[in-house]
Amino acid sequence: MDSERIVLRELLSQDPADIAEVLGELSDEQAAELLHRLYLGGAAAKTLAEMDPEESAELMQKLDRQMASTILARMDPDDAVDLLEELPVDVRKELLSRLSRHDAKLLTDLLAFPADTAGGLMTPEVVALSLSMTAQDAIDVLRQRQEKAGTVYYAYAVDNANHLQGVLSLRDIALARPDRSLGELVIRDAVAVRVDQDVEDVAKLFDKYDFFALPVVDAEDRLLGVITVDDVIDVIREEATEDIYRLASVPSAEGVDTSWWDSLRLRLPWLYGKLVAGLLAALVVGIFEQTIVKVAALAVVMGVIVGQGGASGMQTATIITRGMALGEIDRARGWRLLGKEVLLGLVNGLLLGGTVGLIMYAWKGEALLGVAVSIAMLLNVVVAGMIGVLIPLLLRAIGRDPAAASSLVLTAITDVLGFALLFVLAGLLLPALR
Amino acid sequence: MDSERIVLRELLSQDPADIAEVLGELSDEQAAELLHRLYLGGAAAKTLAEMDPEESAELMQKLDRQMASTILARMDPDDAVDLLEELPVDVRKELLSRLSRHDAKLLTDLLAFPADTAGGLMTPEVVALSLSMTAQDAIDVLRQRQEKAGTVYYAYAVDNANHLQGVLSLRDIALARPDRSLGELVIRDAVAVRVDQDVEDVAKLFDKYDFFALPVVDAEDRLLGVITVDDVIDVIREEATEDIYRLASVPSAEGVDTSWWDSLRLRLPWLYGKLVAGLLAALVVGIFEQTIVKVAALAVVMGVIVGQGGASGMQTATIITRGMALGEIDRARGWRLLGKEVLLGLVNGLLLGGTVGLIMYAWKGEALLGVAVSIAMLLNVVVAGMIGVLIPLLLRAIGRDPAAASSLVLTAITDVLGFALLFVLAGLLLPALR
Repeated sequence: MDSERIVLRELLSQDPADIAEVLGELSDEQAAELLHRLYLGGAAAKTLAEMDPEESAELMQKLDRQMASTILARMDPDDAVDLLEELPVDVRKELLSRLSRHDAKLLTDLLAFPADTAGGLMTPEVVALSLSMTAQDAIDVLRQRQEKAGTVYYAYAVDNANHLQGVLSLRDIALARPDRSLGELVIRDAVAVRVDQDVEDVAKLFDKYDFFALPVVDAEDRLLGVITVDDVIDVIREEATEDIYRLASVPSAEGVDTSWWDSLRLRLPWLYGKLVAGLLAALVVGIFEQTIVKVAALAVVMGVIVGQGGASGMQTATIITRGMALGEIDRARGWRLLGKEVLLGLVNGLLLGGTVGLIMYAWKGEALLGVAVSIAMLLNVVVAGMIGVLIPLLLRAIGRDPAAASSLVLTAITDVLGFALLFVLAGLLLPALR
Repeated sequence: MDSERIVLRELLSQDPADIAEVLGELSDEQAAELLHRLYLGGAAAKTLAEMDPEESAELMQKLDRQMASTILARMDPDDAVDLLEELPVDVRKELLSRLSRHDAKLLTDLLAFPADTAGGLMTPEVVALSLSMTAQDAIDVLRQRQEKAGTVYYAYAVDNANHLQGVLSLRDIALARPDRSLGELVIRDAVAVRVDQDVEDVAKLFDKYDFFALPVVDAEDRLLGVITVDDVIDVIREEATEDIYRLASVPSAEGVDTSWWDSLRLRLPWLYGKLVAGLLAALVVGIFEQTIVKVAALAVVMGVIVGQGGASGMQTATIITRGMALGEIDRARGWRLLGKEVLLGLVNGLLLGGTVGLIMYAWKGEALLGVAVSIAMLLNVVVAGMIGVLIPLLLRAIGRDPAAASSLVLTAITDVLGFALLFVLAGLLLPALR
């Protein structure tokens, strides 16, 4: 019993992020038990905030409702909302009903913002100051609000109607002479984000300007909240995971924690999509069955031709979609890149096609087979490069995610085209087939 | 001339990140000209710091050497080092020789740290305070050093021998009563990074603990510098790009700005690697040429079987390598995931294999062909799932990057195995081949 208490005290002295890690490793019962202890020690809210919202929501449901709502009230509002979003509607309602009217309204308002907008990312707990104050006034206000305002390093200047007038750095306030007016310290044309702005755009702003925090405003420029850089890091990580998953046709909802049954359910549609693409290509091969019976060497080499087309097309598509994700490709550059990829496709295609053509000639002793193989490879690689640029550009032009299903569609095209090119060229060139 | 001056003044009032964007769009001559103007306006250092180091290094070489070294001296040391690393050795030496002895030593020391370690990321300009000071003393020191210390929100407590004793938040100092001792305000067991720690580990620390800045220490715990979160965002982006590129066998050095010639040079080794893998698989098909002449339907369906194997293996490998990159997979979990993927492979393989088997039976009217196709698909998908877990686990176990060449090796194995399985099974089962 005593040793248990020592372990617990040791654990409570850790950083909430470390306690969260321990909590994630425990069985449901043990985790609920530890969470209860954390609650009594006043550390439950910070620990849950460090967990994945899905996990923390599951834990919350195992707690007494009154305890759960108390923990919720102690969390930063942006973290509390992330957790609430993962709860079943009835549990969410019950927890909200047990909060103070102020807290319940604040969280309900936040829940109304879509999770992929600035509103879904911000916390409304922001320090707003009037420009008529002095540096000393500001410090007095900040000192009073210290508890509530968390890890704030900026305050924001607003007028009587809460319109954003500029940013105040806590550092500038602290280092200024106490009697200086905030009007002299304020940075007026500060960057702000609109509450309905996409989180990916917000992440790009943070990346470009190296901010630690940005104010969030509504359409009338009224201050609604603040987004800090730690939330943005999560967005950048999630975005990257999404892009990586798309490239390999992995469902975006999957992770290493997903149960095998959910994994099955999530992956099967992608695999059946790939199967349909594969059968389409098989249909093309099927048309040329008699050609294969006469020249079986075509069946030997056909996989190499579609493989190279797919590989070079994926190289291109990957560079283009990543460039778009990092905001490096505007409209004009998109078309210039098409020219570059055609040129690359020509040179790559000549080199790769020449190599395979020579190998087939050396193997089978049939020069025209080598020629047919070389030309099929060249054309397939050139078209693959063009498609690798065009699919992302077209998807973006119609307002879709450039990375969506690119790899599936691209390899379907290079497969069908590669097979068709090879068999048609062989039919035209090879004496055995004329 | 006058309108030019107005445009210039307008430009100079922009954020350095925006000026950097404009600078990147100009021709070399125009850019050098604008940079000269920026220099006269005192904005050159901040603008260059916002550019890609490769680009800014190229621009620097077009400037008068004295001007270039003055700009260098005005840059934050971590940015200056990034730029110096991209310069030819002789230019670098000449610029360093024109700096004050203090600046030259500082930058030379920093250059000695590898770019992928904490030392390569940190800036040495850090505010170190003694715990015997009061809050007011600290503010006085910070006020004096305001210029030099950039956007600092933390100070660090050190003893006489510069050993790190803890972290001081500027916010806590500013909001404390002026006579309070820093000893009461310091956070003692603060997280610090070792100067030789890998940048990816540093990024994980920032991600986990939501820090804005972390102190960097040597093996004896002496304070060397500080890393801020904006530098870490760049690391996270670069890491993600690297992982995405690996997945599609894109050379890590390439981007949308790469010239077609460099792209060719960089991509060809990958494409020839893929070609070798493709020829290996073709060799297997070649062994069974006579089988194909007898049952051409095998050539029709063989692409579908290796395609599904490759696709399901890549799904698995992608989830595993991404999970590793995010630090979610320890040794024990790795083996549990192998079990899960085998189970998934079995179920997926039965479903996909059954579907394709039935389609082939319906198409060709040969039940045993359907059976051979189904079993080949099932086995290939199961093995693909196992390989998808094992390749990253093995690469990590031998200290290599789990994502290195995974996709190339994985599809090579599933191609060779899929072809071999299909033809051997067909040889055993089909009456036409017995």
